[in-house]
Amino acid sequence: MQNYVAPSQDTLFVLNELFGFEKHYQKLGFADATPDLIEAIYAEAAKFAENVLAPINANGDAEGCHFNDGVVTTPQGFKEAYAQYVEGGWPSMAQPEEYGGQGLPYSMATAMAEWFSGANHSWAMYPGLSAGCMETLKAHGTEEQKQRFLTKLISGEWTGTMCLTEPHCGSDLGMLKCKAEPNPDGTYSLTGTKIFISAGEHDMSENIIHIVLARLPDAPAGTKGISLFIVPKYHVDESGNKGARNTVKCGSIEHKMGIKGSATCVMNFDGATGILIGPENRGLNCMFTFMNIARIGTGLEGLSASEAAFQGALAYAQDRVQFRSLTGTKNPDGPADPIIVHPDVRRMLLTQKAFAEGNRALAIKCMQMVDITMYGEDGPEKQLADAKLSLLTPIVKAFLTETALEATSHGMQVYGGHGYIAEWGMEQLARDTRISTMYEGTTGIQAIDLLARKIMGSNGELLKIMLQEIHGYCAEVRGHTQFSAMANDIVSHCDEWQQVTAEIGQAAAKNPDELGAAAVDYLMYSGYIMVGYMWLQIAVKAQEKLDEGSGNKDFYEAKLHTAQFYFDRLLTRTRSHIAAIRSGANNLMAMDATLFKV
Amino acid sequence: MQNYVAPSQDTLFVLNELFGFEKHYQKLGFADATPDLIEAIYAEAAKFAENVLAPINANGDAEGCHFNDGVVTTPQGFKEAYAQYVEGGWPSMAQPEEYGGQGLPYSMATAMAEWFSGANHSWAMYPGLSAGCMETLKAHGTEEQKQRFLTKLISGEWTGTMCLTEPHCGSDLGMLKCKAEPNPDGTYSLTGTKIFISAGEHDMSENIIHIVLARLPDAPAGTKGISLFIVPKYHVDESGNKGARNTVKCGSIEHKMGIKGSATCVMNFDGATGILIGPENRGLNCMFTFMNIARIGTGLEGLSASEAAFQGALAYAQDRVQFRSLTGTKNPDGPADPIIVHPDVRRMLLTQKAFAEGNRALAIKCMQMVDITMYGEDGPEKQLADAKLSLLTPIVKAFLTETALEATSHGMQVYGGHGYIAEWGMEQLARDTRISTMYEGTTGIQAIDLLARKIMGSNGELLKIMLQEIHGYCAEVRGHTQFSAMANDIVSHCDEWQQVTAEIGQAAAKNPDELGAAAVDYLMYSGYIMVGYMWLQIAVKAQEKLDEGSGNKDFYEAKLHTAQFYFDRLLTRTRSHIAAIRSGANNLMAMDATLFKV
Repeated sequence: MQNYVAPSQDTLFVLNELFGFEKHYQKLGFADATPDLIEAIYAEAAKFAENVLAPINANGDAEGCHFNDGVVTTPQGFKEAYAQYVEGGWPSMAQPEEYGGQGLPYSMATAMAEWFSGANHSWAMYPGLSAGCMETLKAHGTEEQKQRFLTKLISGEWTGTMCLTEPHCGSDLGMLKCKAEPNPDGTYSLTGTKIFISAGEHDMSENIIHIVLARLPDAPAGTKGISLFIVPKYHVDESGNKGARNTVKCGSIEHKMGIKGSATCVMNFDGATGILIGPENRGLNCMFTFMNIARIGTGLEGLSASEAAFQGALAYAQDRVQFRSLTGTKNPDGPADPIIVHPDVRRMLLTQKAFAEGNRALAIKCMQMVDITMYGEDGPEKQLADAKLSLLTPIVKAFLTETALEATSHGMQVYGGHGYIAEWGMEQLARDTRISTMYEGTTGIQAIDLLARKIMGSNGELLKIMLQEIHGYCAEVRGHTQFSAMANDIVSHCDEWQQVTAEIGQAAAKNPDELGAAAVDYLMYSGYIMVGYMWLQIAVKAQEKLDEGSGNKDFYEAKLHTAQFYFDRLLTRTRSHIAAIRSGANNLMAMDATLFKV
Repeated sequence: MQNYVAPSQDTLFVLNELFGFEKHYQKLGFADATPDLIEAIYAEAAKFAENVLAPINANGDAEGCHFNDGVVTTPQGFKEAYAQYVEGGWPSMAQPEEYGGQGLPYSMATAMAEWFSGANHSWAMYPGLSAGCMETLKAHGTEEQKQRFLTKLISGEWTGTMCLTEPHCGSDLGMLKCKAEPNPDGTYSLTGTKIFISAGEHDMSENIIHIVLARLPDAPAGTKGISLFIVPKYHVDESGNKGARNTVKCGSIEHKMGIKGSATCVMNFDGATGILIGPENRGLNCMFTFMNIARIGTGLEGLSASEAAFQGALAYAQDRVQFRSLTGTKNPDGPADPIIVHPDVRRMLLTQKAFAEGNRALAIKCMQMVDITMYGEDGPEKQLADAKLSLLTPIVKAFLTETALEATSHGMQVYGGHGYIAEWGMEQLARDTRISTMYEGTTGIQAIDLLARKIMGSNGELLKIMLQEIHGYCAEVRGHTQFSAMANDIVSHCDEWQQVTAEIGQAAAKNPDELGAAAVDYLMYSGYIMVGYMWLQIAVKAQEKLDEGSGNKDFYEAKLHTAQFYFDRLLTRTRSHIAAIRSGANNLMAMDATLFKV
C-alpha cells in the first residue's frame, strides 16, 4: 500500500503564494500567524497524519467498530491516536483563548485538516463532529453553557456530536419527531430515536456532548418548531464535573460500505436530560450558522480522498511495468515500460491531480472568506466575503465530493484488477469517500441550495458578485499572451453562466420544477468554472515564480501542464452540463410516476 | 431490501419485437426456438434468479468465501443453488447436442444470463467461468478432449476456469512466465503461479477444469510463445473418470471490494499435469476466439447491475416521503410527497432506466450477431455480422460496465445516507459491479482495441459498415415527423463520428500516442451514439405498438419518454467527449513523468 504523504508543499503554496495568507492574517489581527509558524505547525500535522493516522487506516477498515449492549469500541489504535491528538493540542488550535483555545485562525486549522481525513477518513470523523458541536456552542451557547461544556470539548477531553436525522426524516428535517418536555428545574426530557449519528458512542473520550434537534410540546409543525438541546452522555454539573449516566444510549451501529472505523450510531433518547441552547423553535436557524463550516469540512473529505487516490495511483503507475510505449521503449532495461507512459493512464492521473490541486485552492479560498466573516470588522469587505461564501459553500461541498468519486474510481482503475483488492488501499478510498456526496446534505440538496436559495433567492446578486471578481481577475491577466486563451475561456464561460442563469430563472417563473431539473448540472457546471478560475490563477502564479527563478521549478512547471490539461479536458465538461440544463424539466417530469414501474 | 425482479418484459420486447428473433432463429435453423418456448424457459429462469439466486446474494456478500489450507468453501446456499442450476439443465442450454447439450441458440441462453448476474453477481461468476472454459474446448479441443472434458462441463458436474493473469502481468500477457515442460507420455508439467483466478477453487462441483496459459521450453518470447493447456484439479482418465488429485492448489483467496461470494484464487501449479489444447505457441490466438463472448458476458454484468440498481432506487423513490413537490402537494394524505416527485430524483432514475434498457438492446443486438457468426452459413451476411460484432464488442464491454458504475452510484444516491448502509443492498451493487470495468480487459484496453485494432486496423472499414446500417435505418424513419429530430440527431452524430475518426487517424500517423489519448473518450462517445441508435429504434417500435393498440400501453409510453430523456440528457454527453478527443495528446504527454511526483 502507498504511504500517505501530507501534500504540505501544495497547501503552503495555496496559502502563502496563491492567496497571500500572511497579509490576510495580519489584517485580521493574527500577528502570530506567520508563514514560519504555519510551516512549523504544519510539519507536526504532517507527521501526525503520516505516522499516526495513516498506519491505522487499513486496519480500522478491516476491523471496524464493535458494538456490545450500548458500548462501542473503536478499532485498534484509534483511541491511542485520539489521545495523541489531544496531547498535541490539535483540538484547541483555532478555538478562543478564553475557553482554553490557542486563538489561531480557522483557516489555519482547517487547511491542514484535509490531511487528517486523507490519512484516515474514519478517524477524522470523531474530531470533525466535535468541531460541529463546538461551533454550535460558541455561536448559541450562554456563557455558562460555554464554561460548562465548551472548555472540555476544546481541550479534547470530551467529544461532541450533531443529532439531526431520524428514521423517517433525513433532508426534510421539518418532519422530525424527537420530543423535548420541559422539567420543573428548567431542563428538558428528550425522547426519540436519532439515526446516522457519527461518533454518537465510542471509547475515545470521557464524555460525549450531543447537540440534539427536538420539538417542544407546543412547537409549531415543520421547520419552525425545532429547538436545539445539549444532551450529555454523562450529566455535567454546574462546575463542569462529570456525573451519573444520562438516559441516552446507543442502540446499534450501522454496517456500512466504508468509514467502518467511524461509529454510525442509532441513538435512543429515553427521557434524557437536555438543556435548551439558543432560542425556542429557532433550532434550524441556529444549525445554519455552522452549516457553511460543516459543508466545507465535508468538501475537504472529498478533496482529501482525491489527493490520496492520486498518490496511490501515481506510485503504482511509476512502478508497474506493462507494455511498451507506442512511441518507443522508455525503459529499455526492464521487461516493459512503467504504465505512466500510456496516455490513458496519464489522463486518469492528471484528472486526479487537477481535481486535487484545483479543488484545494477553491476550498482554501472559502476558508479565507470564513476567516473574514468570523474575525473581520463589519463592513463591505465582510459582506462581500459572506456573499461569496454563501454561493461557494454548496459548490465546495458537492463538487469536491462528486469529483472525489471519480478520482478514487480512477485510483482503482489505474491499478487494474489490483485496484479491487483490499491490500492496495485504493478500494477503501473509494468506499470511504462514497458517503461524502450523501451526508451533510446530498448533492441534490446542495444544488437546490445553490440554484434556488442562493442564486434565485438573491435575484442573481450573489452570482453577480462572484462574476465581478472573476471578470476583474481575467481582465488583469488577459493581456498576458501566455494566459489570454485561458482567461478568454473563463470569461466566455462566465457570460454563458450568467445567460443560462437568466434562462433558468425565466423558465422557473412558469414552472418551479425547472429549478430542480437544472440544479445538479448547474452546480457541476458552476464547479468546473470556479475550479477553472482557480487553475488560471495557479498557472499565472506558477509562471510568476518561474520567472522569478525562486522555489521548486518542477512544482511550478507541473502546475502549468496541469492547468492546460484542466482547460482542455475537464473544463470542457461544461459542454454536456449546459446541454442538460438547457434541455429543461419536461424530459424529467412528463412521464407519469406510475410508468417508471419495472 | 428491494427484491430483484427479472426484467422479462423488456428482454422479451427486445428479442421478439425490437429485433425479430423469431425469424432470426428460424433462418439459422432453430425451428424449436419459438417465442412460446422462450417465454416458457424464461419464466423458469426468472424464478431461478428471483427465488434461488437473489435470496442468497446479501448473505454471500456478508459471509464471503472461506479459505483453509487450499480448500475454499463458498457462502451458505451457493452450493445448493448450483446443484439446482445443474438439475434445471441450465448449463447445457446452448451447448451442442452431441456432448449432451440442448442445442438451443447462444443468444437465448445469454440474454437471460443477465438476470442471474443481476440477482447475484458473485454466484453467476462460477457458471460464467465454466462457459469460458467450454467455449475454448469447443473451439480448440480435439474430439477426444471434448468427450473427456466437455461433456461433464456441459452437464454441470464439473466447472471450469480461465488461468491467464500472473502477479507481474495482467493486460500484457506477453510477459507471462508459467512454464509447461513436456513429459514422455505426451502430457506437460505446468509450473507457475496464476492470480485472480475466479472460481479457481470451490466446493460446488466434483472437479475443476483449468484452461491455463503457459510457455513451452523453446517458446519464442512475447505473445507468440504462449500455449494453452487443460489442467484438471483431479486427473481425468481417457474414459472421463475422475482420478487422483493433480498438483494444482489454491494458495489463497483475495480480500476484495465486492463479489465476495466469488472465490478469487491464487493458483499454484507445482508440476501439475496438463494437456496441450490447440496448436503450440498459438494460445493467445485461441483465447481471442472466445474473447468476444467473454466480453459481452462482462458487459452483461454491468447491464445487470444497472437494472438492479434501478429497481432498488425506484422502489425507494416511490416509498420514501420527503418534502413536498415544488409544483404543489402530490400526496395530500401523507406527511410529505414520495421523492419521485422531485426532478433530480427522476433524473437519476431515468439515467438508470435509459442505461439499463438501451444497453440491453445493444447487448442483445450483439448476441444476435454472435448467433450469425456461430450458426450462420458462410457468406456476406456472416461477414457483416462478424465485422459489426468486432466493432461493438469492446463498446459493449466497456460502455455497459462504465455506465453501471454511474447507475449503481445513482442507486445509492437516491437512498441518501441509507444507500450507504448494507441492509438496503444498494452499496453491494456498487461494490460488486466495480470490478467489471477492470477485469476481462480494462476500459482502457477495450478502448485501444476499438480505436487502434478495430477502427484504424481496418482502415475505418468497420466503422463504415456500422455507419451504413445506422444511416440506412435513419433514412427510413426520418420521414416520420415524430422521430425526425431524433433521427437527424443520430445522423449528425454519425457524420461527426466519421469526421473525428479521420482526424484521429491523421494525428496518429504523426504521433501514435494520439490513439491512446483519444481512446477512452472515443469509446464512450461511440457508446453514447450506439445506444442513442438503440433508443431511436426502441421509440419507433414502441410507437408502432401503441398505434397497433397491442400490448402494455404503459410499457410503450414509458419507452417514448425514456428515449426523449436519453436524447436530451445522455446523448448530449458526446459534447464533452468530443472536446476531450479533439484536445489531442499533448495535454497528456507534454509533462515529464518525473513532474507528476507528489
